Amino acid sequence: MSVYQATVSAPVNIACIKYWGKRDTKLILPTNSSLSVTLDQDHLRSTTTSRADPSFDKDRLWLNGKEEPIEPVGRLSTCISEMKRLRAAVEAQNPSAPKLSTFPVHIASRNNFPTAAGLASSASGFAALVASLASLYDLPATPSQLSLIARQGSGSACRSLFGGYVAWEMGTLPDGSDSLAVEIAPREHWPDIHALICVVSDDKKGTSSTSGMQRTVETSALLQHRIAQVVPARMDAIKDAILRRDFPAFARITMQDSNQFHAVALDTDPPIFYLNDVSRAIIALITEYNRAAGAIKAAYTYDAGPNAVIYAPKENIKEIAELLLRYFPQAEPFADPFSLGVDNHGRLPDGFNEKVAKTFPVASVKGFIHTRVGDGPRKLSATESLLGSNGLPTFLA
Amino acid sequence: MSVYQATVSAPVNIACIKYWGKRDTKLILPTNSSLSVTLDQDHLRSTTTSRADPSFDKDRLWLNGKEEPIEPVGRLSTCISEMKRLRAAVEAQNPSAPKLSTFPVHIASRNNFPTAAGLASSASGFAALVASLASLYDLPATPSQLSLIARQGSGSACRSLFGGYVAWEMGTLPDGSDSLAVEIAPREHWPDIHALICVVSDDKKGTSSTSGMQRTVETSALLQHRIAQVVPARMDAIKDAILRRDFPAFARITMQDSNQFHAVALDTDPPIFYLNDVSRAIIALITEYNRAAGAIKAAYTYDAGPNAVIYAPKENIKEIAELLLRYFPQAEPFADPFSLGVDNHGRLPDGFNEKVAKTFPVASVKGFIHTRVGDGPRKLSATESLLGSNGLPTFLA
Repeated sequence: MSVYQATVSAPVNIACIKYWGKRDTKLILPTNSSLSVTLDQDHLRSTTTSRADPSFDKDRLWLNGKEEPIEPVGRLSTCISEMKRLRAAVEAQNPSAPKLSTFPVHIASRNNFPTAAGLASSASGFAALVASLASLYDLPATPSQLSLIARQGSGSACRSLFGGYVAWEMGTLPDGSDSLAVEIAPREHWPDIHALICVVSDDKKGTSSTSGMQRTVETSALLQHRIAQVVPARMDAIKDAILRRDFPAFARITMQDSNQFHAVALDTDPPIFYLNDVSRAIIALITEYNRAAGAIKAAYTYDAGPNAVIYAPKENIKEIAELLLRYFPQAEPFADPFSLGVDNHGRLPDGFNEKVAKTFPVASVKGFIHTRVGDGPRKLSATESLLGSNGLPTFLA
Repeated sequence: MSVYQATVSAPVNIACIKYWGKRDTKLILPTNSSLSVTLDQDHLRSTTTSRADPSFDKDRLWLNGKEEPIEPVGRLSTCISEMKRLRAAVEAQNPSAPKLSTFPVHIASRNNFPTAAGLASSASGFAALVASLASLYDLPATPSQLSLIARQGSGSACRSLFGGYVAWEMGTLPDGSDSLAVEIAPREHWPDIHALICVVSDDKKGTSSTSGMQRTVETSALLQHRIAQVVPARMDAIKDAILRRDFPAFARITMQDSNQFHAVALDTDPPIFYLNDVSRAIIALITEYNRAAGAIKAAYTYDAGPNAVIYAPKENIKEIAELLLRYFPQAEPFADPFSLGVDNHGRLPDGFNEKVAKTFPVASVKGFIHTRVGDGPRKLSATESLLGSNGLPTFLA
C-alpha cells in the first residue's frame, strides 16, 4: 500500500519594510505592503513532514516533538482545510487521483533554531506546513498561490514561500485574493547580502505582535500617515534598490523603516517597546560604523523584539562581527560558518569613536548567527521524514 | 547714588504637549504649539539678579558662580539687547527716567537644583533673566510680551513667564510677534496637581535637543503629520481638560504626547533615543498602576532625556511614590516635602501585577523630587541679591 507523505523545509525571512497592522484580522490582510529578505535554510529552517492516511483518526500536528491542538476555527485548521480544498479540486479534475483530501493528516514540524533565540518561527513554520501539504497533494499551485494560504496562518509566512527578495503586496480585495507574496529578485540576483543576527537577552516579556499591531491600528495617530504616505514610496524605492543592487539605498530604507515601525509602536496607547538598551547600543554602533566609513556599509533592522539583524555585503561582515564582539563579549567563540577568520577579542574599525557605547557584560548578546540570503522551500527526501512508519513523530519532546 | 538692581526667581515648566522642531531657528519659532505645567519655585527655581551701572565696563553674566561669555550674536545678547530696547522706549516716553538702557549690566543667576539632575535649566534661567531685567527696567510689559523675548533665549523659557497651566501659541507671523505664551489657567484654578520627578541615571549622553529637533524636522516622515493633524486637536483637548479639571483626560493626552514626541525622535535619521530601560520600566509601572486602579490616576511625561515626570492629584502621590520606591530602592530616604508619610520600603497598590517590571539596583533612579503646580516669576527683596556691593556675584564657583 502507498504511503502518501512529503517532507519540506522552509526558510525564515526578515522584513526590511515592516508589516504592522491588519485591516482584516480573520483573513490576515495587512494595512500596508511589506518586503523581506529570505535567509538561508542551511542555517535557519523549519522542516515539516505531512502524511495523509485513511487509517488516521483525525488531523494531528506535532511542533518540536510536542503535540499542538488543532483548534476548529484556528489558523492551523484554516491552512489545512484550505489545502485540502485545493487537493479536492485536483481530484475533481482527475478521477484517478487518490482521494487524499478525504484522509486525515499527521504533520510533524521542527525548527533547527531554539525558541529561546526569539526568532519568529511562525513564518518559516507555516510556510513549511503549506509547502509540505502542497507537495503531499501534488498541487499545481505557484508559490504566490500558496502564499495566500500561508498568509492566513501567519501574515509574514507568505513571504517565506520564495527565496531571495520578496514583497507581500497588500492587495485591495475584501476576500484577500490579491494579498500575496511575489518575488522581486531571486537570491542569485544579489547573493552577496549576508545577515548577522544578534540574539539579545531581555528581562521583559514583550507585547505579542498579534495583539500589539492591532493596538497600534486602534490608537496610533501616526500609523495612518505611515500606511498612506510613507510605505508606498518606500516599497517602490527599495525594490528599485534591490534591482540595482544598490546597498546604501537598500540599507538606508531598511534602517528608516525599522525605526518607523518602532516609532508607531511607541505612539501606541499604552506604548509598545521592543528595543532595549542593548538594541539601542547596536543601533548606535552601526550608525557610527557607517559614519566612520563615510559610506553605508551595514543596516540594522528589528522585528517585534530586541534582537538585531544586521544586513551587509559579505565583505563587511568580518569587520562588523569584530566590532560587535568588542562591545558584546561572548563566552563561546563566534561560530564563523563562512570561515571569515573573525577575531573573538573584537576590534574597532579605523576612525571609529569608541565612546558611542559602553562595553556590555558577557551574555548581554547571547549569541550571533551569521547567515545570508537564501532560497525558497526545499523538498527533502524520504530519509529526512519526521514521521515514523507508525505515523507518529520520530522525535518526541 | 542710586543702585539700579532687581532680583527675581522663575520656575521650571514641564510640557504636556511637547515642543519639538523649529520653523525658524534664529527667532526660535516652533513647528507646533505646546502646553506645560509650571512647577513650584518653593522646590525648583532659577534666581537672577540684574544690575545696571554706568561704571561697569560691559555686560557680564555669571551662571552658578561661573562667568559665561556673552557672544555678540548669541541668545544671551539677543535677550539683553531686546530688553534694553524696551527700556529705551520707556526712556523716550519719559525723559525723567534714568538712562538705564545705556548702562552695562551685570547679571548673576543660580539654579537651586544640580545640573546633574538633568532638568532643563534653560527655561527657568532665561525666564528669570528676562523677568529680572523687566523689573530692573520697570517695564510696563505683560508676561506674554516678555515671553516673546524669553522665547529667543530658549524656546520653552517663554512658558516659564506664567504660573499654572501655560500654552505657547506657535503663531503664524514671520517676525515671531505672535509666537508667545498665554496663561490657560492660573495655579489656583487647579492647585491639586502634583509632580513627582524621577531623576534617572544614564550611561549615554543624549543628543542635544537643539540639534536633535532640527534633525527630526529634516528627516522624520511622521513629524509633519504630527504638526498638521495631531497637535492642534490635542492642544484644544488638553486646554478643555484643564478648564474642566478633568485629570483622566489631561493625563491621557499628556502620556500620548510624550510617547509621540519620542516616536518622532525615533523616526529621525539616524534615530534619537532619550528613553532607557529605567524610563521604559517607569512607563510600564504607571500603565499598570492605572490599569489596576481601573482609572487614570497618574500620567508620565519625558523630555529630551531619561527622567520621568509623573503628574497626579496630590491624593495619589503617596501611593505612586511607594510604588516607585518598591522597584527603585534608594540609598537616602524620600524627602517627602508635603509630609505624606511615604514608606521608604515601597508598597504595591491592590491588584497590581508586580511582574510588569523587575526591581532595579539602588541608584538606577538617583532620586525623587516631589513638587506641584506653581506660580510665575517672583520679585525678591534686595536681601536676596546675588550681586554684592562691588557688582560681582556674592557666590563664585
